[in-house]
Amino acid sequence: MENFGIPKGTRDLSSIEIKKRNYLIQIIRDKFEMFGFSPIETPSFENLSTLMEKYGKEGDYLIFKLLRSGEILKNKLLNSLNKNNKLHIINSIIEKISNKGLRYDLTVPFVRYVSMHRNEITFPFKRYQIQPVWRADNPQQGRFREFYQCDADMIGSQSVSSLWQEIDFFKLCDDIFNALNFSVIINVNHIDILKGLAEISGIENHLWKYFIASLDKWKKMGKDVVKQEMIQQGISYKSFDKISSFFDIQEHFDKKIEILINALKYSKTGIKGVKDISFIFKNMNNFSLKKIKLKWDISLSRGMNYYTGTIFEITAKDIIKKQNDVVKYQQSIGGGGRYDKLSSYFGMKNFSGIGISFGLDRIYIYMENNNLFYIMNNCQFPSKVLFINFGEREVIYAYRMISSLRDHGISTQLYPNAISIKKQFLYADKNNIPFTISIGTKEIENKKIKVKNINNRIEIEYDNLQNVIKHLTSYFKSNASLFV
Amino acid sequence: MENFGIPKGTRDLSSIEIKKRNYLIQIIRDKFEMFGFSPIETPSFENLSTLMEKYGKEGDYLIFKLLRSGEILKNKLLNSLNKNNKLHIINSIIEKISNKGLRYDLTVPFVRYVSMHRNEITFPFKRYQIQPVWRADNPQQGRFREFYQCDADMIGSQSVSSLWQEIDFFKLCDDIFNALNFSVIINVNHIDILKGLAEISGIENHLWKYFIASLDKWKKMGKDVVKQEMIQQGISYKSFDKISSFFDIQEHFDKKIEILINALKYSKTGIKGVKDISFIFKNMNNFSLKKIKLKWDISLSRGMNYYTGTIFEITAKDIIKKQNDVVKYQQSIGGGGRYDKLSSYFGMKNFSGIGISFGLDRIYIYMENNNLFYIMNNCQFPSKVLFINFGEREVIYAYRMISSLRDHGISTQLYPNAISIKKQFLYADKNNIPFTISIGTKEIENKKIKVKNINNRIEIEYDNLQNVIKHLTSYFKSNASLFV
Repeated sequence: MENFGIPKGTRDLSSIEIKKRNYLIQIIRDKFEMFGFSPIETPSFENLSTLMEKYGKEGDYLIFKLLRSGEILKNKLLNSLNKNNKLHIINSIIEKISNKGLRYDLTVPFVRYVSMHRNEITFPFKRYQIQPVWRADNPQQGRFREFYQCDADMIGSQSVSSLWQEIDFFKLCDDIFNALNFSVIINVNHIDILKGLAEISGIENHLWKYFIASLDKWKKMGKDVVKQEMIQQGISYKSFDKISSFFDIQEHFDKKIEILINALKYSKTGIKGVKDISFIFKNMNNFSLKKIKLKWDISLSRGMNYYTGTIFEITAKDIIKKQNDVVKYQQSIGGGGRYDKLSSYFGMKNFSGIGISFGLDRIYIYMENNNLFYIMNNCQFPSKVLFINFGEREVIYAYRMISSLRDHGISTQLYPNAISIKKQFLYADKNNIPFTISIGTKEIENKKIKVKNINNRIEIEYDNLQNVIKHLTSYFKSNASLFV
Repeated sequence: MENFGIPKGTRDLSSIEIKKRNYLIQIIRDKFEMFGFSPIETPSFENLSTLMEKYGKEGDYLIFKLLRSGEILKNKLLNSLNKNNKLHIINSIIEKISNKGLRYDLTVPFVRYVSMHRNEITFPFKRYQIQPVWRADNPQQGRFREFYQCDADMIGSQSVSSLWQEIDFFKLCDDIFNALNFSVIINVNHIDILKGLAEISGIENHLWKYFIASLDKWKKMGKDVVKQEMIQQGISYKSFDKISSFFDIQEHFDKKIEILINALKYSKTGIKGVKDISFIFKNMNNFSLKKIKLKWDISLSRGMNYYTGTIFEITAKDIIKKQNDVVKYQQSIGGGGRYDKLSSYFGMKNFSGIGISFGLDRIYIYMENNNLFYIMNNCQFPSKVLFINFGEREVIYAYRMISSLRDHGISTQLYPNAISIKKQFLYADKNNIPFTISIGTKEIENKKIKVKNINNRIEIEYDNLQNVIKHLTSYFKSNASLFV
């Protein structure tokens, strides 16, 4: 038998899942707009030249690539076969048979968009994007091959040095998680602090990207794994030992600032980073925050290559049941930072950027695990009324009423054929349709309309449709919370 | 210089385009739900085994295929190279390097969904889906490689023979186009009528698929082209001449019924088709339709292989400017029909299906060409207020007010840095932000808040934020139509 499944790492979404996602998306969208971001959308695939080399080696590997089509593909293959050995042939084939790839994140396409449309855009440009992205990653708990990101970014036409943008993004987080009704921790750090630490410990420039890639694993894998990896990449024991203590530093904020200012006193870059962090935390302290808590985590480095200033990662304490065990762990549900170099890939010099990305699916799973969709537990399917089908003659009579109910905003459907009435009631029950209307031969004769409440099984007979509409409308109004 | 463009046939969507699309989608979604359809979503790509051979030869060719990733790809290539000639190698490569393809329409993934989830579904299952699909087609006016379809379908667990479903779908159309405020023509036909005509003219079974594929071009290409193509496929002149007159028949409805009943009297299938058409049109006549006009078009055959009963295509008279010429033509903006065989591809016997698909992009272009988005012409960008940035000290003072405005539902942004005030006002103007708030050193001293209306340039000074909020809230309430 053939495989009717779906590709690894993909999912179907049922009606109830879509309702919950829409609830989530609506909140995030509202808050994005409240903070002045406008929506844009980019196509699902981009030229490979746009995508490649923006996400590091792993990214290049994980981008879904589209096969060229038809005759072009065949000609490209034919050319590739004229090579002298199989490895050359294979590499040549892979290079030539694909020129488009699926969107891997929303930031790179956004910067490409800004570059293409720069003459129509008024800078600074604040946009948001809520779209799926695709990664050929190994699927696991909370990691899919198709998933949604919700991004808000600002690109300025000049170096926008105001740290109030960072503060505004953190306030945006606070408003979003307040609306979603759960608390998160935002771990914050600064690329310049890491650069300063690299500087004072003698890590050479060409090792920088390995340094931050390894450091990214500090929290998840621990000090020993990171040390081993850094040494393998060519970072000396001496360098590592000189700075490793900073990544675990357990002091209160002001003390940490003092220690870092002292340690980085010979690194201009490092000092700038510490001062930025100090400014942001001091000013955030002026606000009464509702759902976010800022933590300065010197070991935070983020995966992406393109960050240049403040970086941050949003985590929530999640509870996950694994084979009867309850595992608590910190799940990353979003992140972001400042990137001033990315636009130069697309021919735009001196454009600064800062952005935040929320992982819709991670937030969804978190909320599901923690029963935060309770507001939607009574969520009904769209239909409010099912007309029982008694046969052709009755349907002709009833159909005008169906139209009239719909015209009054009451979602109504007719059972498609005249099977047993019991089965039709079962259909209403299973689909959470709260009312049925029955008009059989007798009701047509006596000009009656029978309306049944499926929950309490009470059936009321009406003389005319106007009264039915009045009754249903007032019922749905006074039970609005049941029909999110 | 590198190419920063986007792939052929794809588009970026700006904020204003997204607002218009959302307006469109909201109307279609509301009406789908009003008729009792529930939303589902399927992943963007499916196993190739799900997609291939469902859309005919052209479809197989136009499906975007995803390259296998990493080591698997290399191993598959290596295997393919061990063939004896280049054509074999190429065919073997193409077959093996891809196993997933992008969604080509919404119907096949929907039927695959129903098959996979059949134990959780209560039949009949009414769902809608609004998602993008992808076709590697030659891009042209109104034809993109990534475009949105809005589908509503019903799949029954038994042969649901009631033609009231067809009528319900046509009423759905009427409601949708009434809400969108333009008129369309729905051309209707029936596969059984075409089968009857094939039967009486002696077209053999194996030529059926060529017959309907060629007939599909009748309206667009004309009789001569269709004739030539049919003859080439092996249909005899005699067969063609026997039935070609029916495709152009110019009689009123009742007369056409009479002619067809007479012509098809020896074909049971044909007679059933005519009777179905007759039933549908007669019952539709009972309704006062607002925006749709049904036409029976015997030459309508639809492209897809899977239809088995009623078929229909929605067209609107569009006006398109081509190099100073105004061209009027009938643009297909949707279609659908009954399909009872499709589910058997996925191991489900005796499941009937009927559905409708609206082409979102075609409808969008039509509405744009005919100025039907006028309701949104005054559509504003999200932000209602821009705080002028006078520097760090002033921002610290102002930021609490920004938060307070947002808490009161007034979308507010702060200009990111303290550049010239003139430039900041220009930014508000260009982004259609209706108000600016200025609080400089003097205003801080005197506890004043200056609010400027960007349209009439009138600036008012307030003593406290409560009055500002009161003023703005009442302004937006009384000018609600400007802020769709």
